[in-house]
Amino acid sequence: MGYYPRPILELITQFSRLPGIGLKTAERLVVFLAGRTKTEVEQFGRAVQALAASLQTCGECGNFSEGSPCAICRNTSRDPQLLCVVAKPQDLLAIERTGQFTGRYHILGGTVDPIVGMTVEQLRFDALLRRIKRDQVREVILAFNPDVPGEGTSLTVKHLLQPLVKEGGLRVTKLARGLPLGSDVEYADEVTLSHALSNRREA
Amino acid sequence: MGYYPRPILELITQFSRLPGIGLKTAERLVVFLAGRTKTEVEQFGRAVQALAASLQTCGECGNFSEGSPCAICRNTSRDPQLLCVVAKPQDLLAIERTGQFTGRYHILGGTVDPIVGMTVEQLRFDALLRRIKRDQVREVILAFNPDVPGEGTSLTVKHLLQPLVKEGGLRVTKLARGLPLGSDVEYADEVTLSHALSNRREA
Repeated sequence: MGYYPRPILELITQFSRLPGIGLKTAERLVVFLAGRTKTEVEQFGRAVQALAASLQTCGECGNFSEGSPCAICRNTSRDPQLLCVVAKPQDLLAIERTGQFTGRYHILGGTVDPIVGMTVEQLRFDALLRRIKRDQVREVILAFNPDVPGEGTSLTVKHLLQPLVKEGGLRVTKLARGLPLGSDVEYADEVTLSHALSNRREA
Repeated sequence: MGYYPRPILELITQFSRLPGIGLKTAERLVVFLAGRTKTEVEQFGRAVQALAASLQTCGECGNFSEGSPCAICRNTSRDPQLLCVVAKPQDLLAIERTGQFTGRYHILGGTVDPIVGMTVEQLRFDALLRRIKRDQVREVILAFNPDVPGEGTSLTVKHLLQPLVKEGGLRVTKLARGLPLGSDVEYADEVTLSHALSNRREA
């Protein structure tokens, strides 16, 4: 790596800090960029600087945003009493893409993971509690991944919200499990198939 | 993709223009960056801008450089009469890493490829000729990949340099072929093994 001019080396270092980008890939990307026109590279640089300048999270939901509150939290036609809790911004986007959800979101900022010492207190749980109380939320939909950390987080959040459920007024639900579109009953794993069976509905 | 704030969307577009980076990967990288501190993102942006500002190629060898001529072409302890011709800057680096080469380089800027209509005239061949004549180069080492485009380029360049070879004074060589370090005779492909056999040397 020692023979590139300094600006190339420095950008390789920056790229190699991105997830899934090793030194070799970083080198390939930077050498590609170095072969572009000055204008194209400047465009890229400006886009990064624009991100740095506008870097902000919505104080309400915790999503990336150009302002606070974000466009979704500002949207008065969306139900503030229906709250979908997700681990990260990409999950919010996936749900938005369905076009089916008319409530608001709350980004927890990760999942509970005892192995790395991540507890619910380090996530945006307090903010969730405050929103539930302030907006008199009537349903919290837990939309975590159907895997071990996701299930653990669902259980933890559900447990912590229990007092509010008992006081009445709050429902805690989670995303349904079942066969995904385009799958084969023949090849479905037994956990998925058990869920699909026990959660069967009128055809 | 329609729910990210504009600066995130724009950076995703920029990232997805890099080779091997699809929209999904670009999204993952930008969301990662958006989760970093402002300072870290600015650092990244500055590194890109620094590349744009310093983007320059050495007028001699065609390598990326902070100035022209580059450090290698300026280095008077390197033999200007021994010229290693490579397709791209990464190849130069690979040879530099061996620490065995004391001559100079010439980046051709690609390989001849009739399929995409790339001819030797579109590469830096004229500049190569000028250097050979000006510096009275005595040996040109062709260091292209041992594949079809690399072999084709070797043949073309060798053919075009034939007049200078006949006038005397110029040798045209290419990298040796044989068994790579750590390989198995048993599993070597027949072309490599034929080369290793016909180019055998005193043990």
